[in-house]
Amino acid sequence: MPRKPSQKKVKEKLLNIGGEVMLRQGYNYSGIEAVLEKAGVPRGSFYYYFKSKEDFGLQVIEQYARQVGSDVDQFLNDQTLSPLTRLRKYFEIMCEKFERDRCRGGCLVGNLSQELSDQSDIFRETLDSILSAMSTRFKSCLKQAQAYKEIPSDLNVEDLADFVLNSWEGAILRMKVTKNTAALRMFIDTIFDRVLGNRIS
Amino acid sequence: MPRKPSQKKVKEKLLNIGGEVMLRQGYNYSGIEAVLEKAGVPRGSFYYYFKSKEDFGLQVIEQYARQVGSDVDQFLNDQTLSPLTRLRKYFEIMCEKFERDRCRGGCLVGNLSQELSDQSDIFRETLDSILSAMSTRFKSCLKQAQAYKEIPSDLNVEDLADFVLNSWEGAILRMKVTKNTAALRMFIDTIFDRVLGNRIS
Repeated sequence: MPRKPSQKKVKEKLLNIGGEVMLRQGYNYSGIEAVLEKAGVPRGSFYYYFKSKEDFGLQVIEQYARQVGSDVDQFLNDQTLSPLTRLRKYFEIMCEKFERDRCRGGCLVGNLSQELSDQSDIFRETLDSILSAMSTRFKSCLKQAQAYKEIPSDLNVEDLADFVLNSWEGAILRMKVTKNTAALRMFIDTIFDRVLGNRIS
Repeated sequence: MPRKPSQKKVKEKLLNIGGEVMLRQGYNYSGIEAVLEKAGVPRGSFYYYFKSKEDFGLQVIEQYARQVGSDVDQFLNDQTLSPLTRLRKYFEIMCEKFERDRCRGGCLVGNLSQELSDQSDIFRETLDSILSAMSTRFKSCLKQAQAYKEIPSDLNVEDLADFVLNSWEGAILRMKVTKNTAALRMFIDTIFDRVLGNRIS
């Protein structure tokens, strides 16, 4: 007889499936019942794990952000590559991933930022701090690239890190509409060859 | 006794109010009834003007795109300014507009691209061609800037126009989350001083 899955595993499963459903349908349009059904979890137990749909949505976002953050860290901490090469490689790998996903879904944090920023302060604040934390990761990498003399020392890496992040979200948005990765490739080329390019005297 | 508004005016009113409602709530979450109520139009007459909610949504997007397109054209055809100054001025005026709107709403085309690209091919294709048409406007302005020697002649203005548009959409997304226009100002500075900056030997 199979053992009952632990409560921690059930909760994790609900958060993962919630992430998949919200990536496709957004928050408002995602039904808790569909998530429970897909997870094979009885309806009654939802409120054992979560206080409300809002609580669930916030935890879905936080779990997604932890996962993406840890992926980014893995790339940006790769000491075998130069700082700028690490960052470029991250975007290139993401581009291949989106290609495999047939340019669907995009970025859950970007999607929900679009959908919920005007509707809910608690969602907006959560998404804001996740995007800030991502920008801080990029900033740290760009600072290392400056120390490594890969980019000019007079560049304002604080602003540039935000510009890179925002433009990346914009490129993902356009990818979803065109259903090809041209926007992502153009983003990579323009950011690394032109914006961060070390071509200024 | 006031004259009955013409059918054309009623339809226009429904499309404008539809645009306002969808800018705030997205497409899926916007109810036709709320739009009709706000417009003071009886429920029964909706299907006189539109075949379905989808038909209404598509016409809302097209009317919005016509309006934005005509605004952009007005700026980009201003022969009293240099091509690059015209483009920069457009973004600066939009930045002030978003500031007045307290960084709410954003861009209807960007919002619905995010929401609907994976759900409906007809919406996706409509949004795709609107974004392409906007990119073509930017491209034409950048070509004039090349002829005017404001930007290097070897820049690929086709790709850059798309990059500018996508990054602008990304900056608007971030503005919605942070509820300030720092992302828009950073976009303007980085695009005009760095990406299009004529600083290459």
